[in-house]
Amino acid sequence: MDIGGHILRPFEEGLQALNMALQEMGALVAQAVHRSVQSLVEKNEDYAHQVIRDESRIDQLEIQIDDLATSLIAREQPMAGDMRFVVTAIKINTDLERMGDLSVNIVERSLSLMRQPEVAGAFSFTEIANVVESMVLGSLESFVMRDAQKARAILDSDDQVDRMRNAIGQQMIALMQSDPSYIQRALDHIFIARSLERIADHATNVAEDVIFMVQGIDVRHPATRA
Amino acid sequence: MDIGGHILRPFEEGLQALNMALQEMGALVAQAVHRSVQSLVEKNEDYAHQVIRDESRIDQLEIQIDDLATSLIAREQPMAGDMRFVVTAIKINTDLERMGDLSVNIVERSLSLMRQPEVAGAFSFTEIANVVESMVLGSLESFVMRDAQKARAILDSDDQVDRMRNAIGQQMIALMQSDPSYIQRALDHIFIARSLERIADHATNVAEDVIFMVQGIDVRHPATRA
Repeated sequence: MDIGGHILRPFEEGLQALNMALQEMGALVAQAVHRSVQSLVEKNEDYAHQVIRDESRIDQLEIQIDDLATSLIAREQPMAGDMRFVVTAIKINTDLERMGDLSVNIVERSLSLMRQPEVAGAFSFTEIANVVESMVLGSLESFVMRDAQKARAILDSDDQVDRMRNAIGQQMIALMQSDPSYIQRALDHIFIARSLERIADHATNVAEDVIFMVQGIDVRHPATRA
Repeated sequence: MDIGGHILRPFEEGLQALNMALQEMGALVAQAVHRSVQSLVEKNEDYAHQVIRDESRIDQLEIQIDDLATSLIAREQPMAGDMRFVVTAIKINTDLERMGDLSVNIVERSLSLMRQPEVAGAFSFTEIANVVESMVLGSLESFVMRDAQKARAILDSDDQVDRMRNAIGQQMIALMQSDPSYIQRALDHIFIARSLERIADHATNVAEDVIFMVQGIDVRHPATRA
């Protein structure tokens, strides 16, 4: 392969293809998360259908990235640092695809909510969604830039998301108890909050994998390392 | 390393350590799933606390298996078939750890349910739990035996679990609507059913990875391959 006068070795060529596929995947998934929340906040059906439509491209990319990564390892047998990058790509790939699935779950609930009367009160997903979105973007950036410090910042946001999700859950349970006609809508809200929390968990997984890749330190399950 | 008079090469030695760790992990996770359901069905607090206690060992094993697999790839640079096995081990490892987490989620809800009056009616998790448990065991067996046919049988059960989960959801919504005092208990049931469904999804992931490992065919997302 000849790019701008530079001849790439097969390994670099494979790595470049892997990087490009991962960046397309990351951009699509970040967009899906963003649109799923916008479909909810703005009651926008178009966004919802775009998220559903993009899912098959995300699924294709998942397969393609696994193929690229495994054949790169098998054919080129990369050295330690590159190997860690390719193995991390395989792990992150799974997390990204799940984030795409969860965005589809969110828009399904969002479409359901659009068909029902609005829930009274000043309830909004904007705050939790902003934190989750910035975790997704930050985790992807930390991988592309191989930036462990940026990855560590993601870990701090995870507890915040858990707290916000619990607050939404309590609020919705109180609402259902006060008026059973809210049950379906309140359940939709609870599941959306849960899906956002799970997207944040996947972003946290990505960040942990990046820290391991860059520093060779495993930060998962700190309690078990004592 | 000398086992029964046979001298193992470093690669075989590493593979054996990886296999042993994976089998311990698989056994612990299958047990966690089983006990989480038993804690629920039999209202058994001891089972619940065992599941919570075993989580840290599962977390340790996840780290250990990743370390074993990545250092095996880096040091020994296995050939195609072995490489596929080791990469599959890394993917399956993640699914197993999540199944362990979900078992903990189930027992947390199970402990919550033990503190509340029983839900009226002949409701039982036994049926869905039996299907999910046999999916978990079957997927692990298919990996250990490298048996793609067994793995394919797992995929068929996944839709069945989705249907059972939806039925439980509808039943619980009707219950909440009929009597708001059931809301917390009904939510606990909905989340348990959802956790069981997610365990089944992870077993399905394992089965798909086994099919890919054995046959080199990717069966994920069939719609996107047309």
